Amino acid sequence: MDLEKVIENLTNLIKNKQIKELRETLKSINSADFPSIIENIDEDKIIMIYRLLSKEKAAEVFVELNHDDQEKLINYLTDTEIKNVMNEIYMDDAVDLIEEMPSNVVKRILTNTKAENRKIINELLKYPDDTAGTLMTTEFIDLKENMTVDDAFKFIKRKELKKETVYNCYVVTSDRKLLGVVDIKDLLIADRDSFIKDIMDTNVVKINTLEDQEEVTRMFDKYNYIALPVVDQENRLVGIITIDDAIDVIQEETLEDFEKMAAITPDDGEETYLKTSVFKHAKNRIIWLLILMISAALTGQVIENFEAAISTLPLLVAFIPMIMDTGGNCGSQTSTLIIRGLAMNEITTKDIFKTIWKELRVSIIVGTVLAIANSIRIILQYHDVKIAIVVSVTLICTVMIAKLLGCILPMLARKIKCDPAIMAAPLITTIVDTLSVLVYFNISTLILHI
Amino acid sequence: MDLEKVIENLTNLIKNKQIKELRETLKSINSADFPSIIENIDEDKIIMIYRLLSKEKAAEVFVELNHDDQEKLINYLTDTEIKNVMNEIYMDDAVDLIEEMPSNVVKRILTNTKAENRKIINELLKYPDDTAGTLMTTEFIDLKENMTVDDAFKFIKRKELKKETVYNCYVVTSDRKLLGVVDIKDLLIADRDSFIKDIMDTNVVKINTLEDQEEVTRMFDKYNYIALPVVDQENRLVGIITIDDAIDVIQEETLEDFEKMAAITPDDGEETYLKTSVFKHAKNRIIWLLILMISAALTGQVIENFEAAISTLPLLVAFIPMIMDTGGNCGSQTSTLIIRGLAMNEITTKDIFKTIWKELRVSIIVGTVLAIANSIRIILQYHDVKIAIVVSVTLICTVMIAKLLGCILPMLARKIKCDPAIMAAPLITTIVDTLSVLVYFNISTLILHI
Repeated sequence: MDLEKVIENLTNLIKNKQIKELRETLKSINSADFPSIIENIDEDKIIMIYRLLSKEKAAEVFVELNHDDQEKLINYLTDTEIKNVMNEIYMDDAVDLIEEMPSNVVKRILTNTKAENRKIINELLKYPDDTAGTLMTTEFIDLKENMTVDDAFKFIKRKELKKETVYNCYVVTSDRKLLGVVDIKDLLIADRDSFIKDIMDTNVVKINTLEDQEEVTRMFDKYNYIALPVVDQENRLVGIITIDDAIDVIQEETLEDFEKMAAITPDDGEETYLKTSVFKHAKNRIIWLLILMISAALTGQVIENFEAAISTLPLLVAFIPMIMDTGGNCGSQTSTLIIRGLAMNEITTKDIFKTIWKELRVSIIVGTVLAIANSIRIILQYHDVKIAIVVSVTLICTVMIAKLLGCILPMLARKIKCDPAIMAAPLITTIVDTLSVLVYFNISTLILHI
Repeated sequence: MDLEKVIENLTNLIKNKQIKELRETLKSINSADFPSIIENIDEDKIIMIYRLLSKEKAAEVFVELNHDDQEKLINYLTDTEIKNVMNEIYMDDAVDLIEEMPSNVVKRILTNTKAENRKIINELLKYPDDTAGTLMTTEFIDLKENMTVDDAFKFIKRKELKKETVYNCYVVTSDRKLLGVVDIKDLLIADRDSFIKDIMDTNVVKINTLEDQEEVTRMFDKYNYIALPVVDQENRLVGIITIDDAIDVIQEETLEDFEKMAAITPDDGEETYLKTSVFKHAKNRIIWLLILMISAALTGQVIENFEAAISTLPLLVAFIPMIMDTGGNCGSQTSTLIIRGLAMNEITTKDIFKTIWKELRVSIIVGTVLAIANSIRIILQYHDVKIAIVVSVTLICTVMIAKLLGCILPMLARKIKCDPAIMAAPLITTIVDTLSVLVYFNISTLILHI
């Protein structure tokens, strides 16, 4: 669909007050496309468009908007309209909304929420951040084992749940203990009078409310499920996590890793790059830059200690950037692979000696190739074999140091329960810089006798 | 489930030849757990375990294995056993398998595949790499608009498809043109004698076979679907992509981005870090290291041109690592945010001036803070205001250069249809290094008159 045409069409319909045509056009637009449309329409027209949507669609569109637009919209909506939205949206989306809104808006939202829903929202809000409990929705199909398939059909019809929550139906005891799962497809092809207990799968993979959301994404990744049941400490079914919410978490965690690995403090909010203010951008970046800048002064200190050597042979300085950059790049390569491997559970801390042994061999190959290329260049350009030897030996040592640190530091971080993503290129580069300059000048004084 | 206990239990059952118990135990293990189990069991026992699995489970387990283990297993299997696997697995998994196996194994697989499946596999193999066509499965429910709900139920029962492919049923004309979609939940709650055309949703989001797989992941991300229909140039439904395959692609593309951004040539295969050979690791890393090392020599050249200044004031060299590192980190921060924003479609090339303006303001704030912190340190340590000024002005310039390049280069790459991930930290660091050293020595000679 060409969004620009749609927006032009909508603007014209609004201008000409063609309400009936407008309503029809809005029906054919997918809810997920509304955020981009709303961004391109005058603010005073948005509320008009919003009021022409059906109740269900209005709630769907509301959930798709970013938090700024949600807040603006709430301020325009009447209490009845807020009530409609709150009755239609998923409980987990409601919790998301409440967590992000300023307190006066939260108050208005909660007073317009049904008492029973308010209770569920409050329960969900009590789970610690980033746990399975905060991700789950409390809307699911709970069958009993002695229901027939026909009973189950009637039960599902009565429940009127959203479609994603119906694909997997769960079977529980009278005290809500999880017994099994029935896929809706199995329900559909089973005889109408067979019992749920005979068609259910008792081999259910489930997750505890307090489990970290990273574990949730790992389970979705491993078992190709559409939904995952969430149980409390007593194995009572309290909610389900659907795959679309799991994908959002995967995206969010990946972005966080990207940011940490680039020395950016990750944001709690879900704002996009363009929506984040200049001041916030600066704040998120400055801390690591300061830490790394001060650490880099150490490399300067090492260089200062070799001022005599530099005065004797200023050419030595010309190779420092090349040695530093190569060390940084080698460390970045290894740490990225190890951090991703740890995040995807493809590497565990038990593999530390395997990875060290692998990186050692890789660094010997890579270091040697680089050293040879570099020696040829130095000999051709400066006709000085001794300097070529100094730089080449330094390069091989630097590559080895960088690759070993790039492998050991993220593993250690995981071991002591820190996020391995901290031990990425920026920090490793700074450490490798100091060490490689130290190696460089020591080898220089040794071989060149300066 | 505690895998170590399961493995111990299995090993004991095998040793004592308790076949019946072994078969029962295997039934209770989830297919996704088999790869980890098989890794810890002697190779000659694996085939015994595999033969005790039911036909369906054997196929499921087979798909979960990595390519090395699949190849090993195929060499142990009889032709009949291969035939069973090939009849049970999804068409898209079969295509994956064939693409990864050596030609002698492919031959054995294809001779043991039903003629009709072989035709489908060959068709799928013909789509260009990384397109929607290669991701889709050709197993889906295609209803006709004048079927009743009851007809649809019978049709679904007869088709015997896997559950993920049944959640969304598609409605097509007699010449296979896509008309609409019916969610299985709507089918379930509809009256048995109502017509499909009355309950179907004609507002179907679909994708073309030749569309890039990145577009597939974007659509799954935007519209929370469980499956996406794939149509050919004539709008004929030819397959569907299910969400579990889309997640695999998301993970794969993310890893590729991480690798590219760390100067690693991404691998075609799907091997994990530990499974990749030392030689391959070295090969994937050496090309960029060589390119970057040679480029870094340019920075050395700049330094060489200022040998006179260095001889006069060797202290100048001590600040080079700090300036280079800060420049690298600033470039890395910005380029990471821009590359991710582009990948997630949150930023488009149209936003280039908005992002430049944002980064300009961020870099002034960040640069000033860093310059102040640094001036204090230099004045305290060296009691030299002039050097403090030189380094601070250089720092502010470096931060601005780094942040602007980190923003412009990935955008340009996208504009000329290259992958923005190439324009990440390693390359930008190298460019910023040269420029910042150039700025540094020019400001030094200007202010310090050396």
